[in-house]
Amino acid sequence: MECYFDNSATTKPTEAVVNAMVEVLTKDYGNPSSLHALGDAASKKLEASRASLAKAFGCQPEEVYFTSGGTESNNISIMGAAHALRRRGNKIVTTSIEHPSVLECMDCLKEEGFEVIKLPVDENGLISEDDLNKNIDDKTILVSIMYVNNEVGSVQPIKSARDAIKRANSPALLHVDAVQAFGKLPCKVNALGVDLMSISSHKIHGPKGQGVLFVRKGVRLSKYVLGGGQENGIRSGTHGMPGIVGIGTAVSELGDIEENAKRVSILKAKLLDELKTEENLSINSKGDFPYILNISLLGVPAEVLRNFLSECGIYVSTGSACSKGHRSYVLTSMGLDPKVIDSAIRISFSRFNTEEEVLYLASCLKRANKSLRKVK
Amino acid sequence: MECYFDNSATTKPTEAVVNAMVEVLTKDYGNPSSLHALGDAASKKLEASRASLAKAFGCQPEEVYFTSGGTESNNISIMGAAHALRRRGNKIVTTSIEHPSVLECMDCLKEEGFEVIKLPVDENGLISEDDLNKNIDDKTILVSIMYVNNEVGSVQPIKSARDAIKRANSPALLHVDAVQAFGKLPCKVNALGVDLMSISSHKIHGPKGQGVLFVRKGVRLSKYVLGGGQENGIRSGTHGMPGIVGIGTAVSELGDIEENAKRVSILKAKLLDELKTEENLSINSKGDFPYILNISLLGVPAEVLRNFLSECGIYVSTGSACSKGHRSYVLTSMGLDPKVIDSAIRISFSRFNTEEEVLYLASCLKRANKSLRKVK
Repeated sequence: MECYFDNSATTKPTEAVVNAMVEVLTKDYGNPSSLHALGDAASKKLEASRASLAKAFGCQPEEVYFTSGGTESNNISIMGAAHALRRRGNKIVTTSIEHPSVLECMDCLKEEGFEVIKLPVDENGLISEDDLNKNIDDKTILVSIMYVNNEVGSVQPIKSARDAIKRANSPALLHVDAVQAFGKLPCKVNALGVDLMSISSHKIHGPKGQGVLFVRKGVRLSKYVLGGGQENGIRSGTHGMPGIVGIGTAVSELGDIEENAKRVSILKAKLLDELKTEENLSINSKGDFPYILNISLLGVPAEVLRNFLSECGIYVSTGSACSKGHRSYVLTSMGLDPKVIDSAIRISFSRFNTEEEVLYLASCLKRANKSLRKVK
Repeated sequence: MECYFDNSATTKPTEAVVNAMVEVLTKDYGNPSSLHALGDAASKKLEASRASLAKAFGCQPEEVYFTSGGTESNNISIMGAAHALRRRGNKIVTTSIEHPSVLECMDCLKEEGFEVIKLPVDENGLISEDDLNKNIDDKTILVSIMYVNNEVGSVQPIKSARDAIKRANSPALLHVDAVQAFGKLPCKVNALGVDLMSISSHKIHGPKGQGVLFVRKGVRLSKYVLGGGQENGIRSGTHGMPGIVGIGTAVSELGDIEENAKRVSILKAKLLDELKTEENLSINSKGDFPYILNISLLGVPAEVLRNFLSECGIYVSTGSACSKGHRSYVLTSMGLDPKVIDSAIRISFSRFNTEEEVLYLASCLKRANKSLRKVK
């Protein structure tokens, strides 16, 4: 039996996504910038995909920008906003548990002379409203906060960040890395109050190599990829049509996200119920977000457990796919014991997982808990 | 009958390319950074594609970087090299007929204080050895030259640029935009003498949204996309596997490029032969490169001819797909008469075009030449 529980690393594209991609590869293969019938056909598909995203975001199509992935969306937002707004202020507020694509940009901006404040998180992986209010001021030009953390699924108070910006009368733009949230939590840009929002195709059963960035009308960003002027000049380059129709299709298939979340909550509860009598089990993700569960079998090194499960045909991850082999800075920021961190694995669900898969996972975890612990 | 003669704008992916993409979308859909069996399977495909490129370039696999397209490859090279080498000198040499993804970077670097010299071209679209020797000196840190021009197919003397760098004892890196050349002319990096070389997947019957950059071992570039550290930290982001296996497959299918060029030369000669008695015909691309033919039916506006042909099911372009609607700066740089420029269309071949298609194109062009000319 093969069970894929690494959906926060990447997901399996759906049949409809693959079919839509094959169609632009074999039939409507024109360049959407070409001014003939074949180019027009491609251009129509490009704009249909943009409209699909706009509907999901509750925004205008011209506020939807196609990028090469979540990482690039984060880079464009953070570098682009900081450089465009540097005359308005020098201060940037973020958190200590952002994705590397955010934190690396922050390090770069710090070297350029920006003041970067990384808000701490508590044992639940959450920043506090107090810290937001204390740190966001009228010199702050950018606030960048992850909606859902990729390792533990903590859900940050995005609306509180918007309120803090308002209260401080700050010129700050609010950027939200919604890569792990989109398709799982409500992401209407006006309700959330975001100016910039990054999402990734391959986390929602679309293809890898495709991202989207919401840029609120009127927000100015410095250009990121220079060239033919595609995507309003911010992100030039021939449109990657297979990825673009892929994400457009994936978004149109999301269905009722509240219903999906309920179903996945039941799966997560089932798993926890199956494991409730296990000794040496640590539940590292405490929140309600159903799609990510971080646990440790204390004394079983994470990589040993991951490999054991992989041999059972079960795929989970240690840390995130983007921090290959290093001790998790997310769990460290949450103040977890190194023993917990070194045993931590992430089980990440998709709406397509089944109860049967969960029961198999539970049985393999129980087996692991019996057989893999080192004798001290 | 549908005839696609806009292969310099984009090409139709082959069946093998599409199949390879479908396989990583439906079967090996893991994240190559994931450390389990499904991640390993993806990682093997990633490295197989890199090996396929390395073989085509005659370089080491670790010198092959995957990017989101030719535009991004050009951006990474030019911005990355200029910023990494700024302490060695301030001068950059390029040509006046580069792709916008090069010229826009040059404009940006000029604003940053670099001295950018754009070498002029003659009526054949060629720079001169003399100009290379005169302008490359020991303060030059980057020379960026397009191998084959996208609008007229002129083939620049890359080896002369390498010789000029050597002669001047210059620290300059040699970057070549080989987007239109790769798969059509020999592109072994050592024989060409390049340090950086950009190619694009969708010009060689691979998918759109995928590029490659050759970076010679030891060459330092500033980072371009910051994040998880993929592609040696230069270009972070989850690998776009469909595109990556797509280009790997496209490259492995190129076949004998000299044989292909011979076949396409015969098609181009056939077309010119069919048109040789036409009045008011201007041949704007004079060189031997068989894949691009730029012609004007004098007095017939280019967009009128393009639309006429599109209605016949024949796809050609006016200017390039990347300069939608503007008068060609390439043809202007070549000193062509505005009347010639305003009527210019680009017919661009692929190795899959047939004589039957060429004959149909010729007959439609003859019809257009009779019927579309405005009465003065």
